[in-house]
Amino acid sequence: MSPIENLTRELEKLPGVGAKTALRLAYHLVKGPKEGVRRLARALDLMADRVHPCPACGNYCDSELCSICGDPNRDQEMICVVEEAYEVGAIERTGHYGGLFHVLGGRLSPLDGVGPDELAIDALVRRLDGGDGRDARVGEVILATNASVEGEATAVYLEGVLRPYPVRVTRLARGIPVGSDLEYIDGTTIAEALAGRREM
Amino acid sequence: MSPIENLTRELEKLPGVGAKTALRLAYHLVKGPKEGVRRLARALDLMADRVHPCPACGNYCDSELCSICGDPNRDQEMICVVEEAYEVGAIERTGHYGGLFHVLGGRLSPLDGVGPDELAIDALVRRLDGGDGRDARVGEVILATNASVEGEATAVYLEGVLRPYPVRVTRLARGIPVGSDLEYIDGTTIAEALAGRREM
Repeated sequence: MSPIENLTRELEKLPGVGAKTALRLAYHLVKGPKEGVRRLARALDLMADRVHPCPACGNYCDSELCSICGDPNRDQEMICVVEEAYEVGAIERTGHYGGLFHVLGGRLSPLDGVGPDELAIDALVRRLDGGDGRDARVGEVILATNASVEGEATAVYLEGVLRPYPVRVTRLARGIPVGSDLEYIDGTTIAEALAGRREM
Repeated sequence: MSPIENLTRELEKLPGVGAKTALRLAYHLVKGPKEGVRRLARALDLMADRVHPCPACGNYCDSELCSICGDPNRDQEMICVVEEAYEVGAIERTGHYGGLFHVLGGRLSPLDGVGPDELAIDALVRRLDGGDGRDARVGEVILATNASVEGEATAVYLEGVLRPYPVRVTRLARGIPVGSDLEYIDGTTIAEALAGRREM
């Protein structure tokens, strides 16, 4: 197998990259300067060497704790539960959340063989009962799983798991996305927006 | 900059990969096994170390000459001219071509600053006049540039350059792609297909 074929096979393993895209990427890389290719290789190695899940929240980091868990100025009384690590960034970028996070590492999806044991649910519970001595003060858990069928099922399951603990369990509001026209919004979303209407 | 941000920036430089796709790829890689990430890094390094343009035809290879130029059983009297190295594979896969190739490395595109000097046209001419002692027997040059405006302009320019040499200069037939319905084919293609009609 030639080095180009070898690289094409590796690129094909990336999500959303088929045989033709992999070939196009490989030829783009071989045509460009070699430093660019080596820089990408170094970036991959650096990530493999240094990045690991934060032992507290499960977000990825390259220090002992992630930058959020290690920041004493964050509100230690709130934990926002997300499915995947990259969703932490989506919430952080709003600038409207100052609490901690917890990354489940997926969503309940029996068809894909993902049950409660595959998710970081035990770790979340340990953060509530103060077993690790860190988060014993948690007063609210915000369930920020996706608004998909699996995400909702995961939230409902988590609500059951968290019920015995003295914490408020909330979830993100459902409603009309900002900037969108009502006529293009599906009926279920409008129904949720009606049910969740607020005083002006 | 964290290793994940660093990798995301490198991935964003790939064609067709935007900020969101780069982030998704980076998190896919960090979530998967580290061996996969290292294998991709090794594949990139291997390519940067070993792959270079074939000194005869410009196709990429990891040996002194590419496998096609180095094969004495190929028809040394035909050269098929393509724009990019990855197009060699498209023609090879047909199994209906047994000659040599020549990779231009692009197409004439004044708007992108690509003129004749940016393409491997001198190298093609040297293959015809026997200056390198290898291809003095060339009897036919097939212009297989793309059927786009730039590709056609490149073919017309090459035809002018090659006219003084005692070689047949041909180009790929234009016509109806196999398997397609006439009603979906544009008029220019149908006109070309009519002009190029053949006895049954």
